[in-house]
Amino acid sequence: MNTNISEIEETNTSTLNGVDVQALKETIAYLGDNPEKAQFKFRARNRWIDGNRNETSIDEFFALGENQERAKTHVVKVDQPALILGQDTAPNPVELLLAALSSCITSTVVLHGGADGVEIDELSSEIEGSMNLEGYMGIDPNVRSGYNEIVLKLKARSSADGDRLMELVSKSPVLDVLRNGTRVKIDIDTGEEEAD
Amino acid sequence: MNTNISEIEETNTSTLNGVDVQALKETIAYLGDNPEKAQFKFRARNRWIDGNRNETSIDEFFALGENQERAKTHVVKVDQPALILGQDTAPNPVELLLAALSSCITSTVVLHGGADGVEIDELSSEIEGSMNLEGYMGIDPNVRSGYNEIVLKLKARSSADGDRLMELVSKSPVLDVLRNGTRVKIDIDTGEEEAD
Repeated sequence: MNTNISEIEETNTSTLNGVDVQALKETIAYLGDNPEKAQFKFRARNRWIDGNRNETSIDEFFALGENQERAKTHVVKVDQPALILGQDTAPNPVELLLAALSSCITSTVVLHGGADGVEIDELSSEIEGSMNLEGYMGIDPNVRSGYNEIVLKLKARSSADGDRLMELVSKSPVLDVLRNGTRVKIDIDTGEEEAD
Repeated sequence: MNTNISEIEETNTSTLNGVDVQALKETIAYLGDNPEKAQFKFRARNRWIDGNRNETSIDEFFALGENQERAKTHVVKVDQPALILGQDTAPNPVELLLAALSSCITSTVVLHGGADGVEIDELSSEIEGSMNLEGYMGIDPNVRSGYNEIVLKLKARSSADGDRLMELVSKSPVLDVLRNGTRVKIDIDTGEEEAD
């Protein structure tokens, strides 16, 4: 079956904030009528290069009941700054986490704002995550390895007030995951045969 | 004060897996002796472009008690695939979250493995995050907007067994944040004057 949301919607192009609002509303209606199609799986592959450098490739996802190819393979590289023993060729993984959160909040405000008629002139943010490296470096076992706090300052010039914007922000999937946590299963293949 | 970790350590270049293990051990010792220097703050700025496209810029962080400039500004772009009403020019924010997690696990295994003498020949992973779009699209208020589960399959060819690798994986800062959640504060500037 080759139906996809973008084919369903080519009837009207009433865009707001660069979002095809008509298509978005039809997407919501379609998934509401076909809840079994609403199970999405996003996927990526990571490969170590050397030292602190590795890269993640994204070329497909699962949506509407079938695998969906991306137009091209998107590659996300990481490295560390010199001070953390890297070559500073790319952001590091915990900076990528800040990029995921701030970009998700921006996208969510634009998309859901568009669906609700909110006009956006400008949207930008500054984000800062604090961590105590005594955790990651194993110096103090009582200190967590991850961020103990993230602060995001959103600057919005739009037709919505602060309360309405906060409602839109709160729909962000990455914000949900970071605030509430999620189940992460890890499976390791060492190449050794399993004992029977 | 211009001292930084990379200056402290130019004494020995015993590398393992591309990591300067001597420098890493000196870093750990330095932060252990100077815990007030272990408070790190990573930072990023996000800017909406149009529709589903926005970009995050990373050019500094706070470490060892002072701001640290990056060699250049690292830019991370996002977009959505056509099916989710984008132009497919970049990964989307929830894919970026998978990149952050898988890259962090790779970096952590390499770094901490290096410190412990684990030789790594190959390290790669496949990651999949599942979400029910009835949450994000606001169709069912009882469904969360974020991932309900992430599964990561790590393939390692190294001198460590599966238990040792799992210990290394568990030190990942991004894994900590995703499994356990973290405090996220949001401040919104709408450009309107506050009432007194």
